[in-house]
Amino acid sequence: MSGKKVDRLIKVSFEPEAVEKETSIGPTVLEVAQRAKVDIYSPCGGQGLCGRCLVHVDGDFERLAPPPPHLDRELGYVLACKSRPTGDVTVTVPPGSRTDAAQILEESREGLVELSPIVRKVYMELSEPTVSDNLCDLMRIARHLGLGLAELRAPLPVLRGISETLRNADWKVTGTASLGPKPHRLIRLEPGDTSGRQYGVALDIGTTTVVGKLISLQDGSNITSAARENAQIPFGEDVIARINHANENEDGLEQLMLAVRGTIDEIIQELVDESGVDRDDIIAASIAGNTVMEHLYLGVSPSTIRLEPYVSTFCRLAGLKPMEVDMPIFPQTNILVMPSRAGFVGGDITADVLACGMHKRDEIALMIDVGTNGEVVLGNKEWLMACSCSAGPAFEGGEVLHGMRASRGAIERVHFVDGSPEYQIIGDAKPVGICGSGLIDLAAEMFFNEIIDRGGNIIADTDPRVTLFDTLFEDAYGKGYILADEEESGTGEPVFIMESEIKNLIRTKAAMYAACSVLVNQAGITFDDLDRIYISGGFGRYLDSRKSRMLGLLPDVEEWKYEFIGNGSLEGARLALLSNVARSESHAIFENMTYIELSVSAAFMDEFTSAMFIPHTDLERFPSVQEALQSKEADPPGPRGKVD
Amino acid sequence: MSGKKVDRLIKVSFEPEAVEKETSIGPTVLEVAQRAKVDIYSPCGGQGLCGRCLVHVDGDFERLAPPPPHLDRELGYVLACKSRPTGDVTVTVPPGSRTDAAQILEESREGLVELSPIVRKVYMELSEPTVSDNLCDLMRIARHLGLGLAELRAPLPVLRGISETLRNADWKVTGTASLGPKPHRLIRLEPGDTSGRQYGVALDIGTTTVVGKLISLQDGSNITSAARENAQIPFGEDVIARINHANENEDGLEQLMLAVRGTIDEIIQELVDESGVDRDDIIAASIAGNTVMEHLYLGVSPSTIRLEPYVSTFCRLAGLKPMEVDMPIFPQTNILVMPSRAGFVGGDITADVLACGMHKRDEIALMIDVGTNGEVVLGNKEWLMACSCSAGPAFEGGEVLHGMRASRGAIERVHFVDGSPEYQIIGDAKPVGICGSGLIDLAAEMFFNEIIDRGGNIIADTDPRVTLFDTLFEDAYGKGYILADEEESGTGEPVFIMESEIKNLIRTKAAMYAACSVLVNQAGITFDDLDRIYISGGFGRYLDSRKSRMLGLLPDVEEWKYEFIGNGSLEGARLALLSNVARSESHAIFENMTYIELSVSAAFMDEFTSAMFIPHTDLERFPSVQEALQSKEADPPGPRGKVD
Repeated sequence: MSGKKVDRLIKVSFEPEAVEKETSIGPTVLEVAQRAKVDIYSPCGGQGLCGRCLVHVDGDFERLAPPPPHLDRELGYVLACKSRPTGDVTVTVPPGSRTDAAQILEESREGLVELSPIVRKVYMELSEPTVSDNLCDLMRIARHLGLGLAELRAPLPVLRGISETLRNADWKVTGTASLGPKPHRLIRLEPGDTSGRQYGVALDIGTTTVVGKLISLQDGSNITSAARENAQIPFGEDVIARINHANENEDGLEQLMLAVRGTIDEIIQELVDESGVDRDDIIAASIAGNTVMEHLYLGVSPSTIRLEPYVSTFCRLAGLKPMEVDMPIFPQTNILVMPSRAGFVGGDITADVLACGMHKRDEIALMIDVGTNGEVVLGNKEWLMACSCSAGPAFEGGEVLHGMRASRGAIERVHFVDGSPEYQIIGDAKPVGICGSGLIDLAAEMFFNEIIDRGGNIIADTDPRVTLFDTLFEDAYGKGYILADEEESGTGEPVFIMESEIKNLIRTKAAMYAACSVLVNQAGITFDDLDRIYISGGFGRYLDSRKSRMLGLLPDVEEWKYEFIGNGSLEGARLALLSNVARSESHAIFENMTYIELSVSAAFMDEFTSAMFIPHTDLERFPSVQEALQSKEADPPGPRGKVD
Repeated sequence: MSGKKVDRLIKVSFEPEAVEKETSIGPTVLEVAQRAKVDIYSPCGGQGLCGRCLVHVDGDFERLAPPPPHLDRELGYVLACKSRPTGDVTVTVPPGSRTDAAQILEESREGLVELSPIVRKVYMELSEPTVSDNLCDLMRIARHLGLGLAELRAPLPVLRGISETLRNADWKVTGTASLGPKPHRLIRLEPGDTSGRQYGVALDIGTTTVVGKLISLQDGSNITSAARENAQIPFGEDVIARINHANENEDGLEQLMLAVRGTIDEIIQELVDESGVDRDDIIAASIAGNTVMEHLYLGVSPSTIRLEPYVSTFCRLAGLKPMEVDMPIFPQTNILVMPSRAGFVGGDITADVLACGMHKRDEIALMIDVGTNGEVVLGNKEWLMACSCSAGPAFEGGEVLHGMRASRGAIERVHFVDGSPEYQIIGDAKPVGICGSGLIDLAAEMFFNEIIDRGGNIIADTDPRVTLFDTLFEDAYGKGYILADEEESGTGEPVFIMESEIKNLIRTKAAMYAACSVLVNQAGITFDDLDRIYISGGFGRYLDSRKSRMLGLLPDVEEWKYEFIGNGSLEGARLALLSNVARSESHAIFENMTYIELSVSAAFMDEFTSAMFIPHTDLERFPSVQEALQSKEADPPGPRGKVD
């Protein structure tokens, strides 16, 4: 009875693939694309919810739903999943609507990282404008990038060249664009395809050491790294000394600013030399440092950080350009500065948290950054608490006569065998001093071998079991213990430690431990409730967690709960450089982290006082130490002597 | 049986008012404030919906609802309407939570304008940081301004001075901040209260004339205005000539850029001289111009605008700084550039629409900007369509031998009394030429008095009724009509018009009328459906709508539907400078406006051809003209001659 139904076939062409697909009228653009195996990103599965499958359709089609409000009307963008071709159409799929725009970078600690660097290069083959598609040049680029048309800005010098570059290059160009936090900016337009040449540099500005890493922004791979001592060191070992230098000298701030910028210059020079990468192809940078380092790098006075209530001028900084800080990379790009939570909980700590991922898990973790200052963060994905204590330079070899940074000739490990010390030295060298990890080992071993008592007093001379008095001495400065004599030493002088230095070390470890205790108490939990303890900091890598617990520096929990994450600050800066998700997370960390000021905390003073013993006033808190001491009682150490 | 209930009274102190109010536990902070007559803005009526009643509460209180997600947690901001004091508290109300933050400025065409300039000064008395309120300096300012803590940026030079300025000024400072579109920026911090000194300049960059207006940002009042001829004129009368100059001369673009910047310099100099205002207190600027003018001002080549498909390099520009364009005002501030919809529908048209308010009404209106180019916009709050036609310089006196701009000595009005012309001259001067409005009057009167026919041909010499041949002549260049002879004229030469010039004028008016017709047809309506016709443009002010209809330039609708809005471009720029709402609207206008390209429109060519008669080929479209001609038939004009 009814006439024979004739399905009219229409042709859907996809650009830039130049793939054609015949279809009857009915399926959406997205459905046709899927059949034609043309890649369009549609994480919501074509429900019109996610707004990611934006395409430009030329020809007759009908909209199955009104366009999402954020799309500019009348300017040619539609959702592929809500548009049905009704005649022959050409569908242009911009790069932003590709699955590979969300390409998987690599496994980081926290699983997969989406590659979405803060600034990137995108090769574009743009359609030429016509009377029916007469967007201005800048919006044409915005559309191609999958952005809202009004969402792309270009600084004047770039704007001035766009029109000519596009036409001279026959509309095949590479844009360098910051597409992360708005406003999106087009900061360079080059003819042809230069997208293979795009790099970023992540920098950790430590008080002692500055480390840089050159990273490919094309695939996220590490190209090379470089490290330098912070050239500010001659002006002061720790942040307090640096602040004082900035305050007390007319050019002090300027000197410190130029010093660290010089260090960064050298690092970038080395990265460039090592890799052969052009500076102009380093199109992004990220920086993590403690609050004082970040202030000094920018030339902002850190003086208010030193005095109660320890506030900084800024915590968060956006839109920094390399030319403002003379960083020798592509000048129009953005430098990401990791946000700092407080005067003594800086961008390095935000980066640490980002790197260890404790902010994303249900389980509660503790993160300890052991450096010139000690910072501790406790929490999980629901909440974060942070505090800092002045660890002082003890852990980095300062304040100790023969202390030194972890460099060639430093004793980095000490282990007593049958009561006498064996040590491990950095580099193929004779010992010239003791670095932080060596110091902790030494003090722990001296305690375990009863050369010092729980208060850090050298007791060996009164103890009949220790007979080798040639390793002990007493002079006008007090008692001392010789670790390497004149002949072993690389300096011709013995390497020794004074009793007063051990007591200093105990003060430092007590502050660290007390900081951890206060946070844990404040959260109403115990150390045993912790799922994991992350140790960050360059120095953390060399820490012996068993000896650290013996000394009472680290909480006495199961060995397997400790995880050394290395330079978490650099790793966090790297993640933030590469990933939009990581950048959002770093802001969330910053916003969610409650800062606890210990300097006015009575609880901290109590904890600190209790921790001024080895390992602690309350031995019950260190059951593994207690056990080791007890088993030793049963099996006292034999006669000791240096082992070659 | 039950014990006597004792209501515990608590004390709520409001800062900075220093108002105290005793209350029992129960009411919210907002309710207590209302009783204490402390002003807190709460447009949603305390339902926790609008998020505007942010306050800082020191003391014991409970939250009745979780904080809105955009608020930074743990940092002390709460909604007054969802916080209930449970003990003595101090409530600090930041300026952003005041009703007067939404203070009413003035009645504009469109009712009330909220005073929220793109950049403004805010005097602040900040609370000093304490250990329990240890925000960094920048965030302390952000909080005081009622912003999200992470939402305020400061450029490095400002950041470097914040800490010292705050402390030296005892925390009483004036911030200059751009608080409109994000990112919010603090661009200056001065000690003490300088908020009485804040000004902005709105600029209309016309092809012929540049006008500037100095405005108080404290109360929105107009301080003074200044106008100058665009110094680009010697390089070409209209935009096409300017584009050609830029293209054909090596320094052409630079010359044009410097010329218009020079004109703006002079205008700002005059504004400053007239008002005594300090340049550094001009902290904001807005600019409206056609697309070519905006390109040239920025030094961006407009060359692509001249050729099909007439695209520009940019349509929208954000974040422009005075130093980038050498505008002599406070250098760190923002210049707002009105967005342009297409190569020939510029920021001036967006401003026109904003000024007349057609984008906010249900009724359909037509807006005609009559200038060197003619632009027409049709629509209402649901939709907008725009097109442009090359009116040519005819309306501004160009292309006519004795044509001139509307300046001293120009004949601006012509009226025939008993068949002979009376004219009105600008300034107390003898006539030296005819400006646009005079030309339209003259042509209309010549037609009505049958000196020219409907095709613009001078017919008087063949018409026995016109006998005064001394006003007509014919030479090698064709026929002409003398309006003022040697003796009347200010130049010693007669002021006359050639037949060819009248035909040129008809072409121009035909293009304008055809543009209006195409839009109206495209919308499926007629001119009679229009609620209102707005005429914008400096020249529009002097237009005689009756004579314009006689000529067939403007649609023949009721006189009362015409509204002359004067310089809509400048008014739109002024509104956008002052009001956040107006700025949002200007973006919405830009986004919603469909551009119709007439140069490729067959419908336009048809309409244009039909309109090449006076008033039109189809007299039915001009019933009032038809009626006037008929009533004249019944009462023919008498003998004519010049009336003194």
